[in-house]
Amino acid sequence: MRVNLSLNQIVQELGGTVSGEGELEIYKVGSLALAQQGAIGFFNNTKYTAQLNNTHVSAVIIKPEHKELTSLPKIITDNPYAYFAKASQLFNPILETASGIHVSAVVDPDATVPNSCSIAANAVVGASAVLGERVVIGVGSVIERDCTIGENTMLEANVTIKHGSRIGVHCHLFSGSVIGNDGFGYAEEGGDENAKHWVKIPQVGNVVIGDHVDVGANTTIDRGTIDDTVVEDGVKLDNLIQIAHNCRIGAHTVIAGCVGVAGSAIIGKHCKIGGAAMILGHLNIADDVTISPGTMIMRSIQKSGTYTALMPLQEHSAWLKTAVNIRQLSQLTERIKALETAAADAKNINKI
Amino acid sequence: MRVNLSLNQIVQELGGTVSGEGELEIYKVGSLALAQQGAIGFFNNTKYTAQLNNTHVSAVIIKPEHKELTSLPKIITDNPYAYFAKASQLFNPILETASGIHVSAVVDPDATVPNSCSIAANAVVGASAVLGERVVIGVGSVIERDCTIGENTMLEANVTIKHGSRIGVHCHLFSGSVIGNDGFGYAEEGGDENAKHWVKIPQVGNVVIGDHVDVGANTTIDRGTIDDTVVEDGVKLDNLIQIAHNCRIGAHTVIAGCVGVAGSAIIGKHCKIGGAAMILGHLNIADDVTISPGTMIMRSIQKSGTYTALMPLQEHSAWLKTAVNIRQLSQLTERIKALETAAADAKNINKI
Amino acid sequence: MRVNLSLNQIVQELGGTVSGEGELEIYKVGSLALAQQGAIGFFNNTKYTAQLNNTHVSAVIIKPEHKELTSLPKIITDNPYAYFAKASQLFNPILETASGIHVSAVVDPDATVPNSCSIAANAVVGASAVLGERVVIGVGSVIERDCTIGENTMLEANVTIKHGSRIGVHCHLFSGSVIGNDGFGYAEEGGDENAKHWVKIPQVGNVVIGDHVDVGANTTIDRGTIDDTVVEDGVKLDNLIQIAHNCRIGAHTVIAGCVGVAGSAIIGKHCKIGGAAMILGHLNIADDVTISPGTMIMRSIQKSGTYTALMPLQEHSAWLKTAVNIRQLSQLTERIKALETAAADAKNINKI
Repeated sequence: MRVNLSLNQIVQELGGTVSGEGELEIYKVGSLALAQQGAIGFFNNTKYTAQLNNTHVSAVIIKPEHKELTSLPKIITDNPYAYFAKASQLFNPILETASGIHVSAVVDPDATVPNSCSIAANAVVGASAVLGERVVIGVGSVIERDCTIGENTMLEANVTIKHGSRIGVHCHLFSGSVIGNDGFGYAEEGGDENAKHWVKIPQVGNVVIGDHVDVGANTTIDRGTIDDTVVEDGVKLDNLIQIAHNCRIGAHTVIAGCVGVAGSAIIGKHCKIGGAAMILGHLNIADDVTISPGTMIMRSIQKSGTYTALMPLQEHSAWLKTAVNIRQLSQLTERIKALETAAADAKNINKI
Repeated sequence: MRVNLSLNQIVQELGGTVSGEGELEIYKVGSLALAQQGAIGFFNNTKYTAQLNNTHVSAVIIKPEHKELTSLPKIITDNPYAYFAKASQLFNPILETASGIHVSAVVDPDATVPNSCSIAANAVVGASAVLGERVVIGVGSVIERDCTIGENTMLEANVTIKHGSRIGVHCHLFSGSVIGNDGFGYAEEGGDENAKHWVKIPQVGNVVIGDHVDVGANTTIDRGTIDDTVVEDGVKLDNLIQIAHNCRIGAHTVIAGCVGVAGSAIIGKHCKIGGAAMILGHLNIADDVTISPGTMIMRSIQKSGTYTALMPLQEHSAWLKTAVNIRQLSQLTERIKALETAAADAKNINKI
Repeated sequence: MRVNLSLNQIVQELGGTVSGEGELEIYKVGSLALAQQGAIGFFNNTKYTAQLNNTHVSAVIIKPEHKELTSLPKIITDNPYAYFAKASQLFNPILETASGIHVSAVVDPDATVPNSCSIAANAVVGASAVLGERVVIGVGSVIERDCTIGENTMLEANVTIKHGSRIGVHCHLFSGSVIGNDGFGYAEEGGDENAKHWVKIPQVGNVVIGDHVDVGANTTIDRGTIDDTVVEDGVKLDNLIQIAHNCRIGAHTVIAGCVGVAGSAIIGKHCKIGGAAMILGHLNIADDVTISPGTMIMRSIQKSGTYTALMPLQEHSAWLKTAVNIRQLSQLTERIKALETAAADAKNINKI
């Protein structure tokens, strides 16, 4: 299903200006380094000028200030990378899913499912669930009772949405994700060692997800204890992320894979959280904060900026020494203090 | 489905003493800070006295020693947080699931499924599986052959229990959890670079889970290599946890999200393991150990206490310097030693 | 289903030499420390000589250079651990799954499914999917359109394979794993704070998995952005691993649980990556690299060896001081420099 578009046709759809042969036909996007004839690439950064000079692509998406760097046919725009994303969407239209309910799907008679929806094999839609127009429910996915799913939202195969979850429009939930699972809340009871045990705190809040939110494969978002867990508009979550109960993730924040966000953390808008980072509970993270991958956030962050907590990488033999040194840092500090005192004493003695 | 209970009715169910208007009706639990009239909150710690003074809740669960701190109607008990958990259970009873086997479920004729069980749509129960009374199997969940599931245990949607697993009574397994998966065991074979490859070691032990155990969404517990992987009574596991083969998790231990426990680790009773912590294989952790979030445990821990291994958080520019300094810690130590030697020499020279 | 084999029968199947009573019957494998009569154990390392002396097993797999260390009947071979793995396979044959398509499975008429395949209850096989001989598809697993699954490959229950994935022969995919999920790729657009949002970059590459690859429970492997994500022959992946788009994992590399590999990382052959390690995007890792558990890899590694980045474990009170000291490392370094300058000055003054 190859889509051919001339540069003129692309700018007609997406804006920007053509420079060079506007009737040149393109049929795919690709990187300057790897793609071949027929592809359009993008150039964003003079660091990659060598790639631009040696590329085999047929045309380039480029900023106004870089347009003289290549004689290739080009589309000039302020944000070549976003333009590239949209061009790729043109060349790779989402396959339309036929509407209708598969014979093996189980849809509760009390659920609202417009005719434009697509409910795949073995999917289950519970009582009083309300689906918007053109919602797609993948194979084996489960929508429990009292859920709301907005228009054009798509669930891939084997997604689980627990009762009462509310999901906005144009969301995309990937396989194995679990929305609205019970939060992890227990109170310890019983004083002595043999009687101590945990009493479950019912989790009666819901999960509320805004519009244009993506939730990666096997990512989990827990329901609130009393109030709701909230994921605002435009948030993008990668795979294997845990969002605990009562969290709020601010609009357009992106979180990379394997991140954990503990209970009641409030994350600002437009944050960028690196893979395998961890945010402790009951913290506030300001808007526009970048957290480096693998970084544990142990306190609230009031100020936009980039934050990091990482051990530097070493060969194992060097690290073994470092580990000993780190354990002895307090003594090391004491020894420096002693040297300083001795030096000050010596100076005074010399003065006398 | 609102439940109204007077303070007197609550203490009749849960114990404790009413002080103030015992006929006051409550219909939900809530936090002192956020909840409104009709709710009951709890007060545990004088750190929150301001919240107690400004709360809009109608009644408070409080310790005997704090009862003078508020004039609100109250229930007096030694453990307000556990009492709050139980009160919430009263106001939020678990919806009863209708018993019976959904027409789309596939139950092997050799499986034992009492009439009081509920087997949801598309669930599959394998040969010789034995379910106790009132077991609930969620939509799309799979119980393979030769499993035992104790009374009142509940599996949410899309849970997978592999063959031969034994699960106690009153357990709660959440969506996407996988119990009894093959452990990760391989032996390397073939000396030279081109022939080297891994030979699988069959994993023929089982998983044995005690009573009152909760297993979070997308959490995995692997079967033992030869003997069983064991999770003792009252253990609570959050989401996205990996418990590897041959582990034993002691009774009433709680493990927060994203934790990994490597093979053959033995964890004591009543431990508290923070989110994204990691415990290496073949270690022993004593009873009542607390492990801080994000902490890698590299050696056995013989003594109860709190253990931590975390890089402190810094702005990225400050961290860049720290990383360099950490790499140079050995040289730094050498320089201090040289200064100490020089100072000692100087002292001796001066003495002469 | 007990399998009895004499030592002679075992060496007939697996090679090696019997020393002692060749007609001795064995029915299982076990560890020297725990196993009982009727079991065969292995001995690899003189560190465990005490275990060998006190063992209750009936026979031992042992290296030629250790054969004098025990008078037990033995099988002599160069690699006792790999031999043990294969012996265990003999005593624990994989249960054959009856071929055929369960009545509740949904197989597209355009899919290719040989008669020797086994398609379990509620499994779904999409259009133009091509399965090899003896492929086993577990309960509730989903193979989307245009996938290829090689001979003898086995999918456990609730596996999801997205469209266009190609999987080799003799692979084993465990429950909850998701292959071919969209990679995490977005371009930011909209200059000012209120308009900024993310534009999705279509992920049109596939996932290509070689032969003899194992993929653990709830592990995710994302499809490439333009080209494919590749997992080469013999790779073994544990549970809850994230392999991002465009990665290449070299042949016979093993990755333990909870690891994240970010986008476009290229990992060499025969690497060993410890649990909860994290590899940043666009890095190259050489062949035969070992990465310690919990280690964040922030730069490419050109040389085989073992690499580590870990904070040492401390009691929490000691760690609190360490954390302060680490934050002050730059000042500490300055203070040492000042002492060195002062010492040099003092020396010069003394010289005068």
